[in-house]
Amino acid sequence: MEKKPLPLPQVYRLIEPGPVVMVSSSRQQQTNIMTMSWHMMVEFEPPILACIISANNYTFGILQETGECVINIPTAELAEKVVGCGNTSGEHLDKFKAFGLTPASAASVSAPLIAECHANLECRALDSHMSAQYNMFILEVVKAWIDPNVKHARTLHHLGEGEFMIAGETIRLPSAMK
Amino acid sequence: MEKKPLPLPQVYRLIEPGPVVMVSSSRQQQTNIMTMSWHMMVEFEPPILACIISANNYTFGILQETGECVINIPTAELAEKVVGCGNTSGEHLDKFKAFGLTPASAASVSAPLIAECHANLECRALDSHMSAQYNMFILEVVKAWIDPNVKHARTLHHLGEGEFMIAGETIRLPSAMK
Repeated sequence: MEKKPLPLPQVYRLIEPGPVVMVSSSRQQQTNIMTMSWHMMVEFEPPILACIISANNYTFGILQETGECVINIPTAELAEKVVGCGNTSGEHLDKFKAFGLTPASAASVSAPLIAECHANLECRALDSHMSAQYNMFILEVVKAWIDPNVKHARTLHHLGEGEFMIAGETIRLPSAMK
Repeated sequence: MEKKPLPLPQVYRLIEPGPVVMVSSSRQQQTNIMTMSWHMMVEFEPPILACIISANNYTFGILQETGECVINIPTAELAEKVVGCGNTSGEHLDKFKAFGLTPASAASVSAPLIAECHANLECRALDSHMSAQYNMFILEVVKAWIDPNVKHARTLHHLGEGEFMIAGETIRLPSAMK
């Protein structure tokens, strides 16, 4: 997949529809991936988002320590890997190897991109003061990548208990909304 | 539409997939509706969610003052009303009248439900301390309603600039995820 930089003011268009994402992170020689659905946009530009990462997740400690991660957006053909990453802990498992995913170097953070995902958002933690009370992190997207060949991304949207909605048809209405 | 109470531990299944929602609120005799896509789950039970409501929105002041709102989830047949509510301010407009929507009494809050939406979540503001810095409100869902006749809700997911994805097919994978 040949990725191109996505202008940062366009990032909200990837997050706002609510796809399941995969959060990749690294510490020393160890990488990790977690599946996440609890996230939202906070600001258009610079793009800022908020997410909830349970303190039980291995990623929580890595993010607290390194302040860096990548938000990767998978499409339907990766559904089994998405569930696999959601059902395992990276503490004793190399998820890239276990699920046949390819780490790729990021431009601005040490965490790896997941090459198979059509979009990747390199993030730095901006504010972790809500992590104790709500497990909430505020992330700034500092670099974004998109596969220009993917026109209508069949993103996954978790309905709970392993049930996923796959992005359907699109409609366009006259709107002044950003 | 005959609504039934939805058990509160099921609320995340409505929010996690990332649908556009309509936030209804009221102050004295005045009601308001705003369209929102920046929200996420924070906790399963009791169900807590976070959302971003710009201080430029009329709803911001009402929510700060009353601490109550209803999160209503529209489906595709309401798309024009969703966009209409997103493109207007309630300061000088009765949006229920303007867009032909029906206010219905809530059980636990003074804000009205939007009867045409297949699901309604009555919310109380739990924490507004991030509203100054991030326009963020933490809401607890205290009562939830669902139309049991709607099996596969064709929810709307905003892709930006008036483009919406409509919820497509669903798949189910073996998963230990909640």
